[in-house]
Amino acid sequence: MASKIKTAITPTREADYPEWYQQVVKASDMAERSPVRGCMVIKPWGYALWENIQRELDDMFKATGVKNAYFPLFIPLSFLEKEAEHVEGFAKECAVVTHHRLEKGPDGRLVPGGPLAEPLVVRPTSETIIGDAFSKWIASYRDLPLLINQWANVVRWEMRTRIFLRTSEFLWQEGHTAHATAEEAEARTALMLDIYARLAESFLAIPVIKGSKSAAERFPGAVDTQCIEAMMQDRKALQAGTSHFLGQNFAKASNIRFQTAEEAEAFAWTTSWGASTRLIGGVIMTHGDDDGLVLPPRVAPAQVVLLPIAHKPEDRQQVMDYTEALAGELRRVTYGGRPLRVETDSREIGGARNWEWIKRGVPLRVEIGPRDIANDAVFVGRRDLPHKQKSALPRAQFIAEVGQLLDAVQDQMLARAVAFREANTLAVDSKADFYAFFTPRNQEKPEIHGGFALAHWCGGSDCEARIKEDLTVTIRCIPFDAEEENGRCICCGQPSPRRVVFAKAY
Amino acid sequence: MASKIKTAITPTREADYPEWYQQVVKASDMAERSPVRGCMVIKPWGYALWENIQRELDDMFKATGVKNAYFPLFIPLSFLEKEAEHVEGFAKECAVVTHHRLEKGPDGRLVPGGPLAEPLVVRPTSETIIGDAFSKWIASYRDLPLLINQWANVVRWEMRTRIFLRTSEFLWQEGHTAHATAEEAEARTALMLDIYARLAESFLAIPVIKGSKSAAERFPGAVDTQCIEAMMQDRKALQAGTSHFLGQNFAKASNIRFQTAEEAEAFAWTTSWGASTRLIGGVIMTHGDDDGLVLPPRVAPAQVVLLPIAHKPEDRQQVMDYTEALAGELRRVTYGGRPLRVETDSREIGGARNWEWIKRGVPLRVEIGPRDIANDAVFVGRRDLPHKQKSALPRAQFIAEVGQLLDAVQDQMLARAVAFREANTLAVDSKADFYAFFTPRNQEKPEIHGGFALAHWCGGSDCEARIKEDLTVTIRCIPFDAEEENGRCICCGQPSPRRVVFAKAY
Repeated sequence: MASKIKTAITPTREADYPEWYQQVVKASDMAERSPVRGCMVIKPWGYALWENIQRELDDMFKATGVKNAYFPLFIPLSFLEKEAEHVEGFAKECAVVTHHRLEKGPDGRLVPGGPLAEPLVVRPTSETIIGDAFSKWIASYRDLPLLINQWANVVRWEMRTRIFLRTSEFLWQEGHTAHATAEEAEARTALMLDIYARLAESFLAIPVIKGSKSAAERFPGAVDTQCIEAMMQDRKALQAGTSHFLGQNFAKASNIRFQTAEEAEAFAWTTSWGASTRLIGGVIMTHGDDDGLVLPPRVAPAQVVLLPIAHKPEDRQQVMDYTEALAGELRRVTYGGRPLRVETDSREIGGARNWEWIKRGVPLRVEIGPRDIANDAVFVGRRDLPHKQKSALPRAQFIAEVGQLLDAVQDQMLARAVAFREANTLAVDSKADFYAFFTPRNQEKPEIHGGFALAHWCGGSDCEARIKEDLTVTIRCIPFDAEEENGRCICCGQPSPRRVVFAKAY
Repeated sequence: MASKIKTAITPTREADYPEWYQQVVKASDMAERSPVRGCMVIKPWGYALWENIQRELDDMFKATGVKNAYFPLFIPLSFLEKEAEHVEGFAKECAVVTHHRLEKGPDGRLVPGGPLAEPLVVRPTSETIIGDAFSKWIASYRDLPLLINQWANVVRWEMRTRIFLRTSEFLWQEGHTAHATAEEAEARTALMLDIYARLAESFLAIPVIKGSKSAAERFPGAVDTQCIEAMMQDRKALQAGTSHFLGQNFAKASNIRFQTAEEAEAFAWTTSWGASTRLIGGVIMTHGDDDGLVLPPRVAPAQVVLLPIAHKPEDRQQVMDYTEALAGELRRVTYGGRPLRVETDSREIGGARNWEWIKRGVPLRVEIGPRDIANDAVFVGRRDLPHKQKSALPRAQFIAEVGQLLDAVQDQMLARAVAFREANTLAVDSKADFYAFFTPRNQEKPEIHGGFALAHWCGGSDCEARIKEDLTVTIRCIPFDAEEENGRCICCGQPSPRRVVFAKAY
């Protein structure tokens, strides 16, 4: 039975999680579907969140010596074909440019003209085009390591799309590095995964499990794909970032060779790693509630919104002056190494204004009325607490403690997400329990199932395929922190040295 | 006759300006041609310059209330066709996506598969796709003005390409705004042009002339195209940014309507404005010399490079320690509101190291050897002065005055560029003088001609076309600051109220 309490978002998470997600995207004004099939328009509120994510990631990348560059959008078909597994993996979702102009057709309408001698693929990822550049840039071990990142749009033609989670065009960064040794490339693969985990946990308040993918789930052409996996509130997994150790596969395909210190000729060892606007979907699904978005303070487009309240016209000037002065003081506060982001909303639209900022997920809402001013106080609502639970705080104290308050919100959000994941993660040891864990208990809500199952797996692709076929459950990762433990595969009963994470996934 | 003085770049500007440009791009390690026809790879040194330009522009945009968003890369053909002049202007240079996957052809090779029902054009600019979003976002005068910017890649298929100046894919920002009145939209058009002029003059040290384009040179579909025009060292003009007043043309094409305060229905008034990676070409051609790139301090990827010199192995540790300490102190200096950008190059490759940084255009090169350390001094070379002209400065003084020193470089660069433009700008009053002005004095160097001619023009497109046909000279702009002056058209002799700027152009 649906809850009787009125919520800002209809339906609630419990009533219909997928539809709740779409409604939060809409109500928070983050993005919308575009008239172009499978593509989205990222609106200012969503894009500002992306800019903050970009800035934190970019700073962390640069601190490890990575430099940004930019490579062509178009990849000649012949380049993509250089690595057999790679092209096989992406062939079905490539947008293909075949003409370079429009011309008048027989009926006077414009049609594609100027056919290209070789079709160009709109990059689904850039290993092959960047590999070509690397092959020219690298001659000697002195040119290594080469550490490059690109912020770009990519296109993967998807049949079923969902805003932020799976769209035909999305924004991401893709890092590409080349190294003299396998060990160094493996260390870089791990380092970048650590950065993604730090972004997720310290900035997005999303707890993640770090691990490696099974062979079946690897990036096409990779030797090892490492990932961070998060649990959403419908207990499904979201892959939130991947880091690939590519061995010498792409170096051989793109001819990335170098002269070693011993004057021998060798192929480089390469890595690639990426995170995308999908992370925004992860933020929504980890933290959102039935009143809308809940934003982690460290990346929120606005951390504080000031809401001046003047019911009487004669109060208006005083309230506005006080609000503007407070905004100025708050903007001089440093939070997370950056100036505090403060918005003022002085529209006179009644209670709708407060609800708009709740739906948009701003961490702190600050109401300022004549009575508050008389007390030199402000009235503060935290987005992570019930919306009626507000506190009066002396103005000076609020300014002095706003950082701590935001940290409290950030910490509380992470703690809740950790608790949720732990409550919905189970070590499962029998096949019957495993199947029961993933079987919906209520046929009307097929999306409600157990969550993450930590179970033994023999390492065989047959068992993996069987489980996927039966339950649409996949191995999310083989966690780095899994303990050695003698067990038996949940599917075939063969010996297994450690548990892996099974889940349904986005 | 070629100069006998050895230069780092061959050929010199005088010997072969177009080839000098390509060699500076290469020697400064900014960018290179890609294997994809007409596309470039922007290397880290070039991309870092772009990032600094982006940051300055983005801050200026946001200070005027503009918010960033992101719209689809693909535009349905039917959208582009909504504005007749617009599609006409871009039809010949559109990359067209016609298929959405690759599949095995009869001979086993991959070929385009999955034909699209409607071809998609890779955006050459986004008025039509953003206009569609605006038509949904705007309902009332309360939704106006709507001030949106997008940082994106665009594609215009070019037959003759030159890195940064004209490439099939380039990076830019495109701003799009909608307003309730023509006056407000015109004011926004002018405001954004002012921001481009400020970027050019205060950050890039490129003096520009602000003005309007003639009808023939307008953006397809615009009512008025305003631009900033700069003079390169070959005396040709470079359009460095444009701001378009679109009237109601695109609002009518995209159905952007709103309810006025008086409850009437009206079409919005829109603007668009853009600046691109072409600006990097402008920096190279305005300031570069025969030793390579010369970077304006305000946007240089590194403003100071530290070059430790230790010929004897026993000196090395001391020199490195001193250098690192100095780098740390310099990074705490604020310049132009940002932390000073300092690089240390401790490679032991002899004189090649110094020349590499000269070619890359770093404003200040600081040599640090045992003798300098003994004197607690540094040895500073300014990129805008002859490379042998270096000054010893006490270390503390250098740290205290590095900002002033960089300002001096920045100011000197702007002053030189202004002087060059003034020396090559002439008021021309007779047709014979005009034709002589643009006729190469030396047939072996057809690129050497007069520069900017300030001449009267009747306003007729016939005269404009004639001059373009005869001399490949176009009206760069009708300058805002042109004085009212009775004159006669340089071509037909009809009356003209003011002089316009004629030049050859990139």
